[in-house]
Amino acid sequence: MHAAPRIRIPVGVLGSTGAVGQRFCALLAEHPWFEVVWVAASGRSAGKAYGEATRWMLPEPIPPSVASLRVRDAAPSETGDARIVFSALDASVAGAIEHDFAAAGALVVSNAKSHRMDPDVPLLVPEVNPGQLDLLSRQAFERGGIVTNPNCSTIGLVLALKPLHDLFGVKSARAVTLQAISGAGLPGVAGAAMLDNVIPFIAGEEEKMAAETRKILGDVTVTAQCNRVPVLDGHLVCASVELEREASADDVVAAWRDFRAAPQELELPSAPAHPTIYLDEPDAPQPRLHRDLEGGMACTIGRLQPDPLADWRFVALSHNTLRGAAGGAILCAELAVARGLV
Amino acid sequence: MHAAPRIRIPVGVLGSTGAVGQRFCALLAEHPWFEVVWVAASGRSAGKAYGEATRWMLPEPIPPSVASLRVRDAAPSETGDARIVFSALDASVAGAIEHDFAAAGALVVSNAKSHRMDPDVPLLVPEVNPGQLDLLSRQAFERGGIVTNPNCSTIGLVLALKPLHDLFGVKSARAVTLQAISGAGLPGVAGAAMLDNVIPFIAGEEEKMAAETRKILGDVTVTAQCNRVPVLDGHLVCASVELEREASADDVVAAWRDFRAAPQELELPSAPAHPTIYLDEPDAPQPRLHRDLEGGMACTIGRLQPDPLADWRFVALSHNTLRGAAGGAILCAELAVARGLV
Amino acid sequence: MHAAPRIRIPVGVLGSTGAVGQRFCALLAEHPWFEVVWVAASGRSAGKAYGEATRWMLPEPIPPSVASLRVRDAAPSETGDARIVFSALDASVAGAIEHDFAAAGALVVSNAKSHRMDPDVPLLVPEVNPGQLDLLSRQAFERGGIVTNPNCSTIGLVLALKPLHDLFGVKSARAVTLQAISGAGLPGVAGAAMLDNVIPFIAGEEEKMAAETRKILGDVTVTAQCNRVPVLDGHLVCASVELEREASADDVVAAWRDFRAAPQELELPSAPAHPTIYLDEPDAPQPRLHRDLEGGMACTIGRLQPDPLADWRFVALSHNTLRGAAGGAILCAELAVARGLV
Amino acid sequence: MHAAPRIRIPVGVLGSTGAVGQRFCALLAEHPWFEVVWVAASGRSAGKAYGEATRWMLPEPIPPSVASLRVRDAAPSETGDARIVFSALDASVAGAIEHDFAAAGALVVSNAKSHRMDPDVPLLVPEVNPGQLDLLSRQAFERGGIVTNPNCSTIGLVLALKPLHDLFGVKSARAVTLQAISGAGLPGVAGAAMLDNVIPFIAGEEEKMAAETRKILGDVTVTAQCNRVPVLDGHLVCASVELEREASADDVVAAWRDFRAAPQELELPSAPAHPTIYLDEPDAPQPRLHRDLEGGMACTIGRLQPDPLADWRFVALSHNTLRGAAGGAILCAELAVARGLV
Repeated sequence: MHAAPRIRIPVGVLGSTGAVGQRFCALLAEHPWFEVVWVAASGRSAGKAYGEATRWMLPEPIPPSVASLRVRDAAPSETGDARIVFSALDASVAGAIEHDFAAAGALVVSNAKSHRMDPDVPLLVPEVNPGQLDLLSRQAFERGGIVTNPNCSTIGLVLALKPLHDLFGVKSARAVTLQAISGAGLPGVAGAAMLDNVIPFIAGEEEKMAAETRKILGDVTVTAQCNRVPVLDGHLVCASVELEREASADDVVAAWRDFRAAPQELELPSAPAHPTIYLDEPDAPQPRLHRDLEGGMACTIGRLQPDPLADWRFVALSHNTLRGAAGGAILCAELAVARGLV
Repeated sequence: MHAAPRIRIPVGVLGSTGAVGQRFCALLAEHPWFEVVWVAASGRSAGKAYGEATRWMLPEPIPPSVASLRVRDAAPSETGDARIVFSALDASVAGAIEHDFAAAGALVVSNAKSHRMDPDVPLLVPEVNPGQLDLLSRQAFERGGIVTNPNCSTIGLVLALKPLHDLFGVKSARAVTLQAISGAGLPGVAGAAMLDNVIPFIAGEEEKMAAETRKILGDVTVTAQCNRVPVLDGHLVCASVELEREASADDVVAAWRDFRAAPQELELPSAPAHPTIYLDEPDAPQPRLHRDLEGGMACTIGRLQPDPLADWRFVALSHNTLRGAAGGAILCAELAVARGLV
Repeated sequence: MHAAPRIRIPVGVLGSTGAVGQRFCALLAEHPWFEVVWVAASGRSAGKAYGEATRWMLPEPIPPSVASLRVRDAAPSETGDARIVFSALDASVAGAIEHDFAAAGALVVSNAKSHRMDPDVPLLVPEVNPGQLDLLSRQAFERGGIVTNPNCSTIGLVLALKPLHDLFGVKSARAVTLQAISGAGLPGVAGAAMLDNVIPFIAGEEEKMAAETRKILGDVTVTAQCNRVPVLDGHLVCASVELEREASADDVVAAWRDFRAAPQELELPSAPAHPTIYLDEPDAPQPRLHRDLEGGMACTIGRLQPDPLADWRFVALSHNTLRGAAGGAILCAELAVARGLV
Repeated sequence: MHAAPRIRIPVGVLGSTGAVGQRFCALLAEHPWFEVVWVAASGRSAGKAYGEATRWMLPEPIPPSVASLRVRDAAPSETGDARIVFSALDASVAGAIEHDFAAAGALVVSNAKSHRMDPDVPLLVPEVNPGQLDLLSRQAFERGGIVTNPNCSTIGLVLALKPLHDLFGVKSARAVTLQAISGAGLPGVAGAAMLDNVIPFIAGEEEKMAAETRKILGDVTVTAQCNRVPVLDGHLVCASVELEREASADDVVAAWRDFRAAPQELELPSAPAHPTIYLDEPDAPQPRLHRDLEGGMACTIGRLQPDPLADWRFVALSHNTLRGAAGGAILCAELAVARGLV
């Protein structure tokens, strides 16, 4: 079905010791197409073995093949033979470093916001706007390029909206998020701030959700209110939507249940069999119970109800460091490979 | 200013051992107008001293004057001389018991939902719809009567809306709640369900918010999505509103800051000096930091922003077992006393 | 190495819908030796499909092979052809029901406390006291029998003590536990009690740890203080021990690292490769980071230090619903099969 | 009874914007003897109003009298007329700065560890070792001096031990702590590390508990294991003790219930009426329910049981940022004033 590479493609990971970087390393260590040949991190860690330099936070053990790699500086001269570079860099430094690696010939697949809104950079959710990969040809790099993954809260929303947009046209969407703390990186939100509390503010998040959704889905008005809640992983979105065309509850549920897109057709290794799952239980989805469905790569939806101020309201959940960060970025890279762009 | 009673009015508490019942006892033990002369609870507790029968859950110590009271059965023959009866009964039994106490001559002020939507029963938020107390005269009881307090999530919303409704007319409101677990009573939500999790469902809550707001504010369309979050006390509402008349951000903030109503004018003992407080900090209000402002009787608001799909969006917080339950009901009783209805 | 059964042995699960029952079903659905042929639960659930009757709480999806089973009453007449019956019954009913199933010819492997201290019933931790299976021959049943799994907090302690006991003799141990809430079953500890709180009391737990350890390890004095903490899974034990014979820190760590026992030698399917793991990190073990090592079947140990009032102190962690309940009981059944007792 | 100062004594606060610094400001704003005349903090905050410079984390509002103070640099030249200087400085800088303020003539009462073990510096818990104030006369300062408050976990332990030590002689004590996150300062423990987790390690804490207890109580062997748990305030200690002389359970409970010491006799403003409270409930003390008894200045004890490896075991709770930090230090200053040392 797809163009699986005959040998594993060498890849590198920038920002490899943080929360998202660790997810990259865990997912790539087992990847059928990719092989991690180097990991990079900031100066303090450089030179140490990855296993020593990293405060490993995932419940599964650190993969031995990565643990033994020596951590490098994030310098493109050290690209080695990595043809794909995954970036979990902080936005404060990502812009220039990612550009340099692209200029050095690598396909940079980034989770940072720095290049997301650049007009010739794909802001890619493979099930939603695979055609945006065509933007790569407009980039000025000789061989390399930059592809970006949207914000973790945007990804869940656009996955839930896409099947409705295809069939009924989404005019507008309102989103109130309940976001996990892993999205805040390491060390992230203070424990004292998140015990017996929620925080109704995440800097820049509401603006990102509106602007990124428009770049991904086109002319859809989005308004968002973003909250941090004491959950480890899994962003919940309470959404309401106005549709262009009428749709019954059965139509809407069927749209989610039947949705398949390029990653499923191409059988990409990280593609969930069902990218959007609708659950009938009255109190689903819940972060702890459902975030790991389909390996954390699905958007799980529930509680569809008619809405007097829009057409429908519902609740959607996606795993913010898997689908919403490392897993989503790897799926972008897989699509690029399957399209022959690497 | 107001008609303070010359001697303390004897009151009773139904459902006194639960979460809201404990709040009633704590607040009433210090009350300048009221004196708890009896407490009632279900069969198992009856006959024991309140201090023994109760699994006290509040951080302040149990008031000695209440701790030594003998717990009674919830039978109106045992009304004693209580002229006001506060009800923290479970809705499964509240309807009939409250009716019987009203028939026996007491003013029942209830936190249960049973009589809220009865056409001749006031659904009262003293700052918002004090005139609704007039419904008491339509009730068929000879001397007694029933007044109800809205759902804990409704109270915060209508407090935040009222100043805008008075000045600019609220056409519609959308609310997504992040509700504390104390609102679920005792034993309430399982610990295992609330650790590293949120639950996007509270049975009947969304319907209550829509219907109760309409009874309180009149012709306002409300749509709600309700979530349970791991917070002890304090319901947060992410709201958006459409107004009849244009209002600037300054107008809206001033409406909240300047709002005073009957309880403030009458100087009722439980009335907050400022019923609606607007905070300028970008990440306020937060449940743990702001729920106790004004003794837990204020609605604290923040994050006002223009909204592309409505007029304005904001975040409001109210303490669900103080303002949203026991404290709110006591304020209702104070208003009734000040109006000469007891 | 071991006597793997040629065909999968039919098994049943009592108390299948609760927290431990769900773990049994999840683990057994994939088991190479066992096949779940029936599940039983209390009256309300009987007759429904397991998938409908159960409020599934595990992050992995409910296994389809079990979800479709019809839930039975817990009556031995309905044993069907199950040769092993796993019991996750509540202790309030377990005693008689388990006895009846054993009398009907099944090997009952129970997680309930009811029969644990019966003199002719094995209280079994397969790595620690495999010989205790010999007690089965003293039981009065014709074909069936009863084997019990210790309390979840005892299991972690005896696993940590056993390698030291074998090599240096354990005279006494002191244990202070920090126990997860999943050990309290469903609905378990109230969410309101476990937010911003710990509870220094678990009914009967301290007595069980002392008495059960003595039945398992012999003449060892154990004293325990047990606390409930807001952790989902994983019991932590802060322990100190007095040894009969002198041992250096290296000796003690080596004892844990080298420990292998009957389940490892017999290559039982649920046996961890390393039953006791020592971690060198200064802040290990931690419940969320380490409870799932070895599929949740290992006891993970850290922070060994000399102790001025004993010989050594350390911290040990074990997964309370895997190693400490369902997984531990399945390992007991595997040992019984390998020994030809089924 | 005591020598209450005729006018309020001017005091300053070092490290005023952190977690303990905020507690100092909240407690001192209402203090009958002391008046905050200046607050100091690190360079970034200096020059701003305290209310703006501080990320206020306490549920009660920031006291207006302190909010309006301009934040100073921590330079002794700026001592102004403060005769007492409370220090909530980080230990990394406290040593030298505190020395300089003492040299400039102030009585420094410090919560930092820097000078605690200096042989001529009092390590003071006013109910436990008031005589240690005599060490002040050995210090080389002309007018000023340094008094220190022990570690937050030590304070609870020595308060619980003192009544037993006086009556029965404490030979040794073992302590396993479950410590709140507020003790870790701001930003403190990462939220992601404290959700669904406990951490069995607090750097230096176990050593401090052993060494400080010996300086305070004399020849008592203490061994400690320290854990961080997801609790906001309140350190719980599971303790066991060996006594020199026999004591019944009634004797021990009476020792705690009858205990009064210098602060009670002198009626110091911050002294709890009952410094050690014994609760009979089987599951007390609990951090959230009992940490605020006596204004957070008491040590609350429960669960006394005979112990086969010692004499008695019990559980003790103290508020770590009130009794264990700011409140405890203020009590030290009050004792110094009452003794005529200021």
